[in-house]
Formats: sequence, structure tokens, C-alpha cells
Amino acid sequence: MNILTDIAALRETLRGEKNIAFVPTMGNLHEGHLALIEQANRLSGCVVVSIFVNRLQFLPHEDFERYPRTLEEDCRALSALNVKTVFAPNEKILFPTPQEFLLALPPVADILEGKFRPGFFRGVATIVLKLFNIIQPDLAVFGKKDYQQLHIVREMVRQLNLPVNIVAGETVRATDGLALSSRNQYLNGTQRAEACHLYQTLLRIKQKIISGCNDFQALQENASNNLAQRGWKVDYISIHRRSSLLPAQAPDQDLVVLGAAWLDKTRLIDNLEIEPPIFLK
Amino acid sequence: MNILTDIAALRETLRGEKNIAFVPTMGNLHEGHLALIEQANRLSGCVVVSIFVNRLQFLPHEDFERYPRTLEEDCRALSALNVKTVFAPNEKILFPTPQEFLLALPPVADILEGKFRPGFFRGVATIVLKLFNIIQPDLAVFGKKDYQQLHIVREMVRQLNLPVNIVAGETVRATDGLALSSRNQYLNGTQRAEACHLYQTLLRIKQKIISGCNDFQALQENASNNLAQRGWKVDYISIHRRSSLLPAQAPDQDLVVLGAAWLDKTRLIDNLEIEPPIFLK
Repeated sequence: MNILTDIAALRETLRGEKNIAFVPTMGNLHEGHLALIEQANRLSGCVVVSIFVNRLQFLPHEDFERYPRTLEEDCRALSALNVKTVFAPNEKILFPTPQEFLLALPPVADILEGKFRPGFFRGVATIVLKLFNIIQPDLAVFGKKDYQQLHIVREMVRQLNLPVNIVAGETVRATDGLALSSRNQYLNGTQRAEACHLYQTLLRIKQKIISGCNDFQALQENASNNLAQRGWKVDYISIHRRSSLLPAQAPDQDLVVLGAAWLDKTRLIDNLEIEPPIFLK
Repeated sequence: MNILTDIAALRETLRGEKNIAFVPTMGNLHEGHLALIEQANRLSGCVVVSIFVNRLQFLPHEDFERYPRTLEEDCRALSALNVKTVFAPNEKILFPTPQEFLLALPPVADILEGKFRPGFFRGVATIVLKLFNIIQPDLAVFGKKDYQQLHIVREMVRQLNLPVNIVAGETVRATDGLALSSRNQYLNGTQRAEACHLYQTLLRIKQKIISGCNDFQALQENASNNLAQRGWKVDYISIHRRSSLLPAQAPDQDLVVLGAAWLDKTRLIDNLEIEPPIFLK
């Protein structure tokens, strides 16, 4: 397995490759990442995984410094999946000078995560654009766990005419339903036991919508209140259209319910797609 | 010669091509453009010329609607230069929906042209990025006539890690020194005779710096005053460092003097690079 830290060496390694599949990560790989990489393996014989903790997408008060960095373990896991090429640059390689060219994003980047983490998607979009330009993949796999990120990357590809296909990977969950995330390791035992209730809450909303409930406002408020009573600090529980990711007004659409909430100092996010009831009858 | 209006058809035409050279234009081609294309021809066997009047880089009050559109003549000229591929999309192809992903640029985009045409470089950088993504050239030729644009495109390529080499083309001038420009055709006879004095003014500054003058402030002010007395409305006459394009403080550097001024309703720009005196001794 080639672990490359240099852009020129990476490009040389990939020269002449057809059908490059790319999976960007911030490392600290868990089963969720590995599922995306297995998906890439099924789609391509040349999978590139990047490992880079991107400072641009952390807010000043966020956990950039303490974000877990586990390159050796990550590389063992990638090697076991037969990944041939890992791109693990340091900050000087990707930001030799301060990053002044950034992307300005549409309003959909200012809701949900963007509202609570202003600048987050600008940082994500900019690093994804840079990595696409470096690796020049034919396809890239992004997890549905970060649903809004997936939406924004797809829109970026469309509006900037990037020659890459975006493939969505399903969220991987623990047996109790908790979506896998690098941040789960910040949870203590009690918090870990409680954490599945974010998923449970979204699941109940999904079931209620499927069974015909269309008072989205009440569903969102009840869910938030229930979580708050259990000790969570809720950023949002919100029902949106899948196509535009704008807030949903009517039930007869492709929907997704998204949530973000804190257990003490750990912020968890999750979402569930909802098939429109009309298809279920 | 293939004149393509569609992105998929263009990509199909270019599939498998090595060493693609790209010359972006807004059409209405003159000898300045043709020199860039001949330069591209010397560097590549596969030259792509785009013709697209980019609405994003015009301010609301500017001449977008009356900007000259001369596709047939342009194509005759390109055919005579053996250009094989012309990309001439309409607005629906490049902007099927409003362009919401735009580039946020560094402070160097807010001086000189950027000060007098706010949003101009954002529009330029965004369309250049889109065209690079569509055409995926190995190199692209930009004229020094738009010196700040060349600088910003180079910086964009560097900071976004775009896999394209930027090649600079020299400014082509009329016999009296006027830099060729599509906007020259807006000039009437009297204005056309006067127009060379922008170049003459920059040339005098260059000569004075080479002969040892280092009071840049005085050089700039005198030049502006002289042009104003001749009937010009001067936006700027300004001496800058070539490497950063920031205002020059000392004479012993690679310099460029840039100017922008109006003759009635027509705005002309020009610039001259200045070799540091130390190399001339």
C-alpha cells in the first residue's frame, strides 16, 4: 500500500489510471468509513482514500486539536481492505499559504448544520474541491450520515461542472441504532447508552409520517422536547425535502428527517430518509 | 472544425486527448486573441478555444448586452488557425440554474480592477474554474493585457490545486501602442487617436523608473493629472509588485505599472512590466 504525503508523488502514482474512486476521510476510521471504502472497491479497481483533518471545517471553539488522529491503525484497516493508495498530506502540503480562495455557498449551506456551525460547509466544500483537483477521481463516495454535506457536495459538482460522480453510502449503525461516528468515542458509558435515543427519536418521526401524520411542526417540537427531557441539548430535529434539502411543507414528498443534539460536550448528528407514504400503500 | 455547444459532446470529443491547451475568450476575436491561440498551437496539438460572454463578470450597469458577439467571424478566424475544437455554449448550458457556488477571492481581487469593478474577478474566477472542469486542459493561455486577471487565475490554480499550467501571452498592440481590445471598437476617430496615450503614459513611467526615479507616488499622480488634462477620466495609474500584485514600495523589485481610464463611455486598461534597474546596469 502506498501512503503518499506529497501531491506530485500522488499524481505520478495515479497517472494513467482509469476509473479512480475516491473516499475522503479525516481518519480515525470506523466501520462506517470502511463500508464506504468497500463500496468504492466494488465500483473501481483503483481506490484512493485521503486522511486529512481539515482545519477549515472546524470552528474556532471546536475540537480540531483533540480530534482523534490514528494514522497507523487507519492504514492497517485500509491495507486489510486492499486499498492501494492512501493520501495523507500534512497541513503544509494542502495549505502552504493561508487558503484565501474559498467557496461561497448557496443558502442551503446556512440551515441545519450550517446554522449551528457557520463556515463548516465552506471549509468542507473547499477541501473537497482541492482534493478532487489533486486526485481527479472519476467517482467519490460520501456517507449519508453527513446528509447535508452529501447534498452540498452534489450541488457543488453540478454547479462547478466537476467531472466526478458522487456516490452515496448508507449509514452504518451500532446494534442499538446509533450511527457510527468518530465522535462517539468521546461518550462515557452512560452517554453511550443514551446516545441511541437520537436515532430512536428520528425513527419514531419516520414511522409517524409513514402512518399518515402530517403535522411536521408538532412532530419536530415533540421530538425535541422528549430529547431535552432525557438530558439532551437539541440543536435541531427537522423534516426536509430530500431534493432541495429545504424544510418540508407537505407530507407527499421524498423526505428526510435530520437531527443534531448534544450529550454534555459531545455533539451527535443523524438522519433518516423517509419514503413517501404514497409508495407504501 | 468542431463547434460544440454541449458539455457532454465536448468531453466526448476530448476523451483520450493528451496535452490539451485551452484559450478562454468572450469572442469578438482580434489579433490579441489570435496571438494567444498561435501560442497555444505551438504548445499543443489539441487546442480548445471557448467563446462565451460571461454574465457573471459584468456589473449591472456594464455593457453585457451590447458586448460584441461575432461567432461566425470568430469561427472563420479560428478555422484559419487550424483550431479543431471550439466550445461555444449558451447561458443555459453553463448556468442551467442560477450560479450559487461562487469563489471567494483574496484581497488582491479588491484592488485595481476589483476596486472599480466589484465582483468582476469573482465572476472571472468562477467561470474559469467551471471551464477548466469542463475541458480539463493541461495548459491554459491568458493574456498579460488583463494582468490582474492572469495573477488571480494563477493564484486560484495554486490555491485550489488545479491540474493546469497557466501560460502568459504578451499583449498585442496597434502600431501606435494601443493594446488591442474588443472595447476599442467603441471608440470614435478622435478617441481612437487619443487612446494610445494610456500606453504612452505607462511607457513614460517605465522609462523614468528605469532611469532611477523612485518617487512612485509622484509618478502616479503626475501621470493621472496629465491624462485628466487630455480629457481622460482616470480610475488608476498604479505601480505594483509583479509577484504579489500589491502596491510597490521600493524600486528594486520586479514591477508592473497598471492603468485604467475612460474616454467618454469607453473604459480602457493597459499595463507594462518593468525590469528592475539592477538587471539593466
